[in-house]
Amino acid sequence: MIHYKNPLLVLGCVPQWHERILLCRRAIEPRRGYWTMPAGFMETGETMQAAAARECQEEALAEVDIGSLLAVVTVTHAHQVHVMFRARLRRPEFAPGPESLEVVLCEEREVPWTDLAFPSVEYALRRYFADRAAGREDHHFVELNRSLRA
Amino acid sequence: MIHYKNPLLVLGCVPQWHERILLCRRAIEPRRGYWTMPAGFMETGETMQAAAARECQEEALAEVDIGSLLAVVTVTHAHQVHVMFRARLRRPEFAPGPESLEVVLCEEREVPWTDLAFPSVEYALRRYFADRAAGREDHHFVELNRSLRA
Repeated sequence: MIHYKNPLLVLGCVPQWHERILLCRRAIEPRRGYWTMPAGFMETGETMQAAAARECQEEALAEVDIGSLLAVVTVTHAHQVHVMFRARLRRPEFAPGPESLEVVLCEEREVPWTDLAFPSVEYALRRYFADRAAGREDHHFVELNRSLRA
Repeated sequence: MIHYKNPLLVLGCVPQWHERILLCRRAIEPRRGYWTMPAGFMETGETMQAAAARECQEEALAEVDIGSLLAVVTVTHAHQVHVMFRARLRRPEFAPGPESLEVVLCEEREVPWTDLAFPSVEYALRRYFADRAAGREDHHFVELNRSLRA
């Protein structure tokens, strides 16, 4: 199959353990050294939720139960659609997979906002914490056309 | 770009005009002659909502305002993810585009349930009417692995 004009799906999740969330520092380009939730390309034969859980297993060696839909971000310039879910860690066990330099559980005030890898990461995390503060689990759509640091 | 293993996004909507919804009878294979909501492959440079509105314009020559997320259907065997939104027709004007034989507005009891084109169409329409009866606008995830008539 050759597709010149169709966007690819990137699936991710925000894994929660009590008040903290799991973040990974990227070991690969683009944006090596910057922080993200576990996320990556969806593959055929899996659901969106299965893809999000697989990426968490691969990048953070952590098992999660996927929860509600958090964000759908069309990243026009990258020809990608990023879909992020809320998730819960099954136990507080995690470690860097081959694509991560570091994996941490952090509180909201510890999130490295100025060192996030992509604008879709910041968008999803801002909505995550805003919803949590309001006691909601909404989902959010947005289109992002340019790099965070453009 | 050559992608062997990533699913493609198909975007659609259920356009509403008062109590009725718009359906199209397909003029193209697969499933020529069977009924569907307007839907088709998402293209780069557009959001999910823009893709759903474009498909409605192309297949039913109708203008819609896209509303809430209705269904996300992973169609494993077809390597596709179908995403359907609720929508409202701006005015009751529509006609078959080149990929449709016929376009109609029908009430729930008039839906051709036994002549729908794909299982994802039936899934989305069943949830649409169930939610409407309950006064809700939920979104629904499902994985469908085989044809409706297998």
